[in-house]
Amino acid sequence: MKVSKFGGTSVASAEQIKKVAAIVQADSSRKFIVVSAPGKRFDADKKVTDLLIELANAAIHKEDVEEKLHNVVNRYKEIAVGLGLDLTICEVIKQDLNSRLCESQSNLELFVDNIKASGEDNNAKLISAYFTSIGMPAVYVNPKIAGLIVNDLPDRAQALPVAYENLSKLQNVSEIIVFPGFFGYTKEGRLRTFDRGGSDITGSILAASVQADLYENFTDVDSVFCANPRVVNSPMEIEEITYREMRELSYAGFSVFHDEALMPVYKRGIPVCIKNTNNPSAPGTRIVAERKANHRPVTGITADSGFSILYVSKYLMNREIGFGRKLLQILEEEYISYEHTPSGLDDISVIMRSHQLTPEKEVRIMKRVVNELHAEDVHFRHEFSMIVIVGEGMNNSTGLAARAATAISRTGANIEMINQGSSEVSLAFGVHKSNENKILQALYSEFFAPVSAR
Amino acid sequence: MKVSKFGGTSVASAEQIKKVAAIVQADSSRKFIVVSAPGKRFDADKKVTDLLIELANAAIHKEDVEEKLHNVVNRYKEIAVGLGLDLTICEVIKQDLNSRLCESQSNLELFVDNIKASGEDNNAKLISAYFTSIGMPAVYVNPKIAGLIVNDLPDRAQALPVAYENLSKLQNVSEIIVFPGFFGYTKEGRLRTFDRGGSDITGSILAASVQADLYENFTDVDSVFCANPRVVNSPMEIEEITYREMRELSYAGFSVFHDEALMPVYKRGIPVCIKNTNNPSAPGTRIVAERKANHRPVTGITADSGFSILYVSKYLMNREIGFGRKLLQILEEEYISYEHTPSGLDDISVIMRSHQLTPEKEVRIMKRVVNELHAEDVHFRHEFSMIVIVGEGMNNSTGLAARAATAISRTGANIEMINQGSSEVSLAFGVHKSNENKILQALYSEFFAPVSAR
Repeated sequence: MKVSKFGGTSVASAEQIKKVAAIVQADSSRKFIVVSAPGKRFDADKKVTDLLIELANAAIHKEDVEEKLHNVVNRYKEIAVGLGLDLTICEVIKQDLNSRLCESQSNLELFVDNIKASGEDNNAKLISAYFTSIGMPAVYVNPKIAGLIVNDLPDRAQALPVAYENLSKLQNVSEIIVFPGFFGYTKEGRLRTFDRGGSDITGSILAASVQADLYENFTDVDSVFCANPRVVNSPMEIEEITYREMRELSYAGFSVFHDEALMPVYKRGIPVCIKNTNNPSAPGTRIVAERKANHRPVTGITADSGFSILYVSKYLMNREIGFGRKLLQILEEEYISYEHTPSGLDDISVIMRSHQLTPEKEVRIMKRVVNELHAEDVHFRHEFSMIVIVGEGMNNSTGLAARAATAISRTGANIEMINQGSSEVSLAFGVHKSNENKILQALYSEFFAPVSAR
Repeated sequence: MKVSKFGGTSVASAEQIKKVAAIVQADSSRKFIVVSAPGKRFDADKKVTDLLIELANAAIHKEDVEEKLHNVVNRYKEIAVGLGLDLTICEVIKQDLNSRLCESQSNLELFVDNIKASGEDNNAKLISAYFTSIGMPAVYVNPKIAGLIVNDLPDRAQALPVAYENLSKLQNVSEIIVFPGFFGYTKEGRLRTFDRGGSDITGSILAASVQADLYENFTDVDSVFCANPRVVNSPMEIEEITYREMRELSYAGFSVFHDEALMPVYKRGIPVCIKNTNNPSAPGTRIVAERKANHRPVTGITADSGFSILYVSKYLMNREIGFGRKLLQILEEEYISYEHTPSGLDDISVIMRSHQLTPEKEVRIMKRVVNELHAEDVHFRHEFSMIVIVGEGMNNSTGLAARAATAISRTGANIEMINQGSSEVSLAFGVHKSNENKILQALYSEFFAPVSAR
């Protein structure tokens, strides 16, 4: 039995939803369908989620909501018309939105979340209605009724163990279940949304709950590429990849699959397949616990910019037990999470995502490091990128670091940081942002091009 | 004006002390002479310090001390005879030792330290007497009277700021000052010894106090080699090296100069020259704040074994603010200092010196990491070596990491860890101990051999 999640572009229009129905009909084991809100139909199009945010903002600012409300309902109406549906569904959706708009604004975040989450919720109702209209036995399931219980973290809710128990009971439903992605409810019944890419998370939780044989993630690409196709010319497609590899790749720049979404299926060993709604016969990319050994040591290469480095030096630093810990404590007290901490004998660098910093925060941190740790030199440097080479068992591959460093040095770029030694699946280089693309290209050539050129 | 420190082998016999006198006479700016206890005269010989430890142990265990006392006094006597000195100096030394043996044993550590420190102290008296006997105006200066005030850390005392002030007054003494290395006194007048290699520390403190133009460190090698001559065949000699480079080298295996000893001279920018008592005309190795640029990016390569790795992994670790800090806190509470912490997305390794670990400590740490941090995998790995490549500005040298990693990969050895990114002067590789020597040889060939072969 499979859980199949369809992303925004897969459910953006009547034409797309017809493809979804065909995909579900083609395989009777596709019993659980998780859907996103309607996404973009073309580049300049607006996602329904964005229309909903506009609607919520209008309501908050006491502006006239009619036009914004119309924009949302109209997207569903176009879809319903295209699917030949009875338009009562649009009334249902309009009433639902009106009732959400009447909710209390005492907590603005909750108010907005509630309106945003309607995008997935109403789309699930619509798609369920369509399935039924063409003779597919389907039923819309509301996450509150099904018991998708989450904790109270705004924007980043996490499913509680009881949610898995509750959802497991859906196995007994005979119809095809159409389930909205992106949100759950707290024990107190408050709606909470997941992190970005939250429909992936819903699908993963559901797959784990019902012990699915496979979690299918339908999107608009045939498979995951081993490097960013906007930087590297026609990169190779990945057929099979482990959870760990996928997680490392999705972390730094690979946006195909949300990294938190892997957790539930990873924990139960349920394989994932990323497939294309527009080309369902393509094999896609399978994410598995263990994969067949490959002649290539590297599975993918990814790059992400927006990193800063905090450099701290002090003579005889390494003699001071607790220096590094105290430094990390200062950052923790400023709510900064860090990525790596390469260290010399008398110096340590902390690499972090720049979006966490402000000029004031930087000054505060530097002052504390000087005053409390008596450091001799403290400064921030910005505009760095991390380039991560990912592959299972690469740490045991003699000469791989040498090949990577040599490929980078041929570009004339300087390596600011190398991090190897903990992860068995990745090797990370810190470089100046201006060199990111040429290094990505050079590394792709080194590890993939010779094979693809055969 | 120069401070000249003579190590154990330089003052081990009458013959050696005559060389010291000749060196001091040859340059009238050599005004401050710091001496060690007599060291080994030949491989199987015993250092006076070791004889003193035997003496102290005998006293503690209430054994007969006569023979042990004789062994010590006899070493000085042989020297005095060789130098043609009046033997009253040996009586002075014997009385001094007897009075130290009568000190309270309520604190055994202090008792032993006091006896150990007599090695340097009595040698300074003897050498001063010899200088005077051959017409050199010299005076023995006692660290207590001169005000070398230290803090109360046993075995690892550190000079207090007031010590520098007190010692600066020695500039006004017209005679050559002969000063014993290795120890100072607390404010309360208790003798405290410095860390291993403590005479280097005394010399450095003295040089900083009197604002010497040069701190000469006389030992038994012509200069510092750029790699361990026991592993690499006739390595090149280093002519000039910066404090930072020396510190990185002395940290991991280079035993020529104690790293803590650099601190006082580093802070005041006083250059150091390491010279050979047995070949004083050789230029030696100069340690300076800044050195002339060199065509070679690498100044030295060093290796040290005895490292262990604590590996910790947990899915979505990088989402947890404070994970790394808490891990380091657990180690801190076990009094463990660490060297590097390479990290992946879901894992972190902590590299530390193995001597700090016991099987019980390891079990305790692993239990805490599992229970308190809910890690999924925690284990220790042992028998690692760190290989450090040192050179000013090497982090800006494009391709250097590539050259090093390629040279290592040619040996067939696997690189367990790479640490680059903080220190501007070093690049560290973690490797299995069994590969240490062949990697050191390969790196030497890569960075030094082509030049020496010209």
